[in-house]
Amino acid sequence: MADRLIYLPLGGAGEIGMNAYVYGYGAPGKERLILVDLGVTFGDMETSPGIDLIMPELTWLEQNRDRLEGIFITHGHEDHLGAVGHLWSRLDVPIYARLFTGTLCRLKMEDQGLPAETVMIVGPRPEVTQLGPFNVQFVPISHSIPESAALIIDTPAGRIVHTGDFKLDGTPVVGDPFNPVVWREIANEGRGIKVLTCDSTNIFSPHPGRSEATLANPILDWVMAQKNMVVATTFASNIARLKTLAEAATASGRKVCLLGRAMRRMVSVGLETGILTDFPETIGPDEATELPRNKVMLIVTGSQGERRAASAQLSRGRYLGLSLKEGDSFLFSSRTIPGNERAVNRIMNSLSELGVNVYDADDGTFHVSGHANRPDIQAMHELLQPDMVVPMHGEHMHLREQMLLAQEKGFASIIATDGTMVDLTGDAPQIVDQIESGRIYLDGSVLIGAMDGIVRDRIRMALNGHAMVSVIVDEDDKSCPMPGSN
Amino acid sequence: MADRLIYLPLGGAGEIGMNAYVYGYGAPGKERLILVDLGVTFGDMETSPGIDLIMPELTWLEQNRDRLEGIFITHGHEDHLGAVGHLWSRLDVPIYARLFTGTLCRLKMEDQGLPAETVMIVGPRPEVTQLGPFNVQFVPISHSIPESAALIIDTPAGRIVHTGDFKLDGTPVVGDPFNPVVWREIANEGRGIKVLTCDSTNIFSPHPGRSEATLANPILDWVMAQKNMVVATTFASNIARLKTLAEAATASGRKVCLLGRAMRRMVSVGLETGILTDFPETIGPDEATELPRNKVMLIVTGSQGERRAASAQLSRGRYLGLSLKEGDSFLFSSRTIPGNERAVNRIMNSLSELGVNVYDADDGTFHVSGHANRPDIQAMHELLQPDMVVPMHGEHMHLREQMLLAQEKGFASIIATDGTMVDLTGDAPQIVDQIESGRIYLDGSVLIGAMDGIVRDRIRMALNGHAMVSVIVDEDDKSCPMPGSN
Repeated sequence: MADRLIYLPLGGAGEIGMNAYVYGYGAPGKERLILVDLGVTFGDMETSPGIDLIMPELTWLEQNRDRLEGIFITHGHEDHLGAVGHLWSRLDVPIYARLFTGTLCRLKMEDQGLPAETVMIVGPRPEVTQLGPFNVQFVPISHSIPESAALIIDTPAGRIVHTGDFKLDGTPVVGDPFNPVVWREIANEGRGIKVLTCDSTNIFSPHPGRSEATLANPILDWVMAQKNMVVATTFASNIARLKTLAEAATASGRKVCLLGRAMRRMVSVGLETGILTDFPETIGPDEATELPRNKVMLIVTGSQGERRAASAQLSRGRYLGLSLKEGDSFLFSSRTIPGNERAVNRIMNSLSELGVNVYDADDGTFHVSGHANRPDIQAMHELLQPDMVVPMHGEHMHLREQMLLAQEKGFASIIATDGTMVDLTGDAPQIVDQIESGRIYLDGSVLIGAMDGIVRDRIRMALNGHAMVSVIVDEDDKSCPMPGSN
Repeated sequence: MADRLIYLPLGGAGEIGMNAYVYGYGAPGKERLILVDLGVTFGDMETSPGIDLIMPELTWLEQNRDRLEGIFITHGHEDHLGAVGHLWSRLDVPIYARLFTGTLCRLKMEDQGLPAETVMIVGPRPEVTQLGPFNVQFVPISHSIPESAALIIDTPAGRIVHTGDFKLDGTPVVGDPFNPVVWREIANEGRGIKVLTCDSTNIFSPHPGRSEATLANPILDWVMAQKNMVVATTFASNIARLKTLAEAATASGRKVCLLGRAMRRMVSVGLETGILTDFPETIGPDEATELPRNKVMLIVTGSQGERRAASAQLSRGRYLGLSLKEGDSFLFSSRTIPGNERAVNRIMNSLSELGVNVYDADDGTFHVSGHANRPDIQAMHELLQPDMVVPMHGEHMHLREQMLLAQEKGFASIIATDGTMVDLTGDAPQIVDQIESGRIYLDGSVLIGAMDGIVRDRIRMALNGHAMVSVIVDEDDKSCPMPGSN
C-alpha cells in the first residue's frame, strides 16, 4: 500500500489543555511517528477530586514506541510540556526544543531524576531537525510565553504547519514578534502548505487580538496612582508581563519583590537563557518588609486562586513576613480560567476583608490574551493558504467553529478529537481509525488510569457519604457475636 | 434604655444568594422583629458535595421567635423565597407577599405539606401592612422576575427603604417599570429616608444597565435567521424573557413548546395571577415532534448546566421524544453564574457534537442583567438621599465597593456581613453585636448543620480516598483469627 501521512491527537483536541499530537508518515500501520507536545491539565473537585495533574493516556504510542522518532515541544507552558517528566520514560526518545523551552524541559526531567541531556536544544528556522521522514523547523511565533514556536514539518507528502499556541503580536515586549513576511515566505516555498494544524482556543473572540505592548501605559498609570503597597499577580510564565509590571514599579520608584517558586524559576531561566534582559533588580521579602510600603511592588504567583500560592497566602494574612493592610492595592493582571472563578473570588473577598483595593482585568485594561482571536485565525488561514485546516487545541465547540470558518473560505477541514486518526495524504482529511485514548491521573506520586474506579469511588463517597457494616459469620454463615461481647 | 432600630443580616451579606435580613425596633434586646426574605443558595462539589440546597442558619431568630412579627418576601427568586417551605415551621409566623410572589410561596408551602394560608397576599403601596412598630409597603420595582418589590419600612426611628433585587428598567416587558417620580415622592414624604438597604450584586459593572425591551429585536432577528429547530434556554422565572422568546417564535411562524417543570410552573402561575397576558399558545412535546422542524421553538430549563434539566437531556440526545440534529440552533439567553462554567460548557460541547449551532449571550446581545449596575446604584442613592446606605446582597468585595461609593458622595455607610447586628438609630450605622450565623444544608430530605462534620468527612474522602481495616480482638486485646479462617 502507498505511504500515507497521518495525524492523531492524543490530548488537546476536544479539550483545552493536555496537548499531545502525533504525526506519522509511511506505509499504513508502519508509519514513522513524531509527537508534538506532552502537556498536562489540572484536576477539579467535580470530576477528579484529590487529583492534581491529568495527562494523556499514551497506550497506543507505547505499543508503537519502536516507530516513534522523537518529541517536539513548541513552548514552555504546562499544558504543552508538563507531562514530560512523568511520561518520558514510557517513550524513551529524544526531546527537541529551543533554548528557553528546552531548559524548562530539562528542569522537568531533573525534578523526576531523569537524564536532562535527553532534551536536545535546537535553533530556530532555518535550522532543520531531520528525524526519519520528517524535516522539522521551529519558527518563532508570538504567544504569552517567550520563545514559542510553530513547527514546519516537511514530509514526502507535503508541508505541515503546526501553529502551537500563537497570537499575531508585532510587539510582544519579550520574545519574537509575529512576522507575516516570514510566514508568506514559508507559505510560498516549494509546493506550499498542505496542512495547517491550528490553535482554536480563542475562536469565539470576535475582535482582533491586542498586543502585549498595549498594557505598558495602563499598568504604569495604575501603579503611579497607588499610594501604599502594590501587589500584582499573573502567570509566572508570562515573562513579558512580569517585565512590564517590574518596569512600571521601577518607573514609579518602587523595588520589585518576586514571590512564589514558579515566579522565581521563570525569571531565573529567562535571565540564564538570555531571553530576558534589562529586568529590574529584585529584592527579597526580608528587604521588602523594611522599605516604606509605597516603595515596594510584590509580583506574586496564584492568579488562578491556587490555595497554596503566594496570592492566597497573602490574602489569608501573612506570607514570608509580609502582610497586606487597609489601603494596599492588588492587581489581577490575568484572566480567570473557566472553573477557577470561585477560588479567585474567595481571594478577592479575603483581600477585601483586609481593606485591600482589588483590581481585575475583566475589561481588558490590564490583560491581553496569548491566543489568536477569530479574525487572527482567519488571517492565518489566508496567509498560509493551506490545502486543509485541522483545528486543534480546543473543546469540541472550538474545533467545530474553526472548521466551519475554514470551510466557509473554501479550505478542506475536519473535526478530529483525541483518539481520531486522520489520513492527510489526499486533498481532504479522512478519518481512518479511532484508537483508544484517555487520561492518566497523578494521585500523589502514583499514576493511575482515569477509568480505574478509584476516583469514581471518591466522587460517590463525596456525593452520598459512606456507610460500612462489618458482619462476622461462622462456618454455617450465621452471624457471630463479636469476641468479647456478651 | 432608649428604643433602637436594628439591622441584622442572616444571609445574603457576604455572599450572593440565600437572602435573609432582620430588622428590629424597640428596647435593646427586646426589639420587635421582622424578617425580609428567606432564600436558598446552591451547593457545589468543592465545598458541599452531595448537598443540593443551602439555607441560612436561623438559631438566633428561633431563640427570639416570640419577638418575630412576620416575614416579608420581596420577590419570587429562589434565593429570596426558596427556604420558606423548609424553615417556616421553625418560625411559625405569617408571610406577606404580593400576588405572584405569594402564589409561588404558597406552592413552596404546599410542596412541604404546610398550610398555604399562612401566606398573606398584600397589594402594592399605598397598601400598608402594620406589624408591631413597623408599617410596611411593597413598592413595585423592576427586576428579572415580575412583581418584584422594594419595601418601605416605616418605624418610629424613621423610614427604611429595602430595595430587594432591582434594576432601573423603564420598559421591563412584563411587570412594573421603574418609576423615578414615585421614588422621589417616597424620598420626600415626612422626614425622608433614614436608611437605604441596597442591592450590591452588579456594583462592579461600570455601565448603566440595559432594559429588557432592548432584547426583542435582536432575538427576533436571530430566530428569523434560523433554518431548523430552534431551542432557547433562560431562567424559568424570567417571564419577560419567556414572553420575548415566545413572541419571536410566533412572529417567525413557529409554535412554542415549553420543556421543564419550572418553566411550565412559572408560566402557569404567571397566567393564573394575571401577571402574564398575551402569551402565545403553547404546544406539548408530542405535537412538537409532529411539526416540521422549522415550525417549532423549544423554550427549556437548564441554562446553568443543571444535569437533569431539559437542556442537559437534549444535549445528551433525546428528551420526551424530541431530539436535536445537525443544523438546529440553541440559544443561551442567560448569563452563566460563576462556578457553573464547566457544566454549561459541557452542554455546549455535547450540542456541538450533535452538530447543533450554539449561541450564547456573552456579548450582551441576547441577555440583560436583572440588577442595577454601578451608575444605577449611584442614581438610587442620589434619588433617595438617605441618611445612610447599608449595602446588602453581595460578597464582601461588593458590599465594600458600594460602601466606598456611598461614602464618596457623603452618605454614611458600613459593611455588615451575616451575623453583624447594626444599630441604625443615630446618624450613622454602628455595629453593636455579632451573633452566631451560618448555613444549613439540605441533604436528601434531612437538614444538617454545615459544621456538623458530615460534609467535611465527604470532602476528605473525596480528596484522600478512604481505607478501612477491621481488626477483631479477644478479651486480652490480642487479634483474633476471623471465624472460619484457618
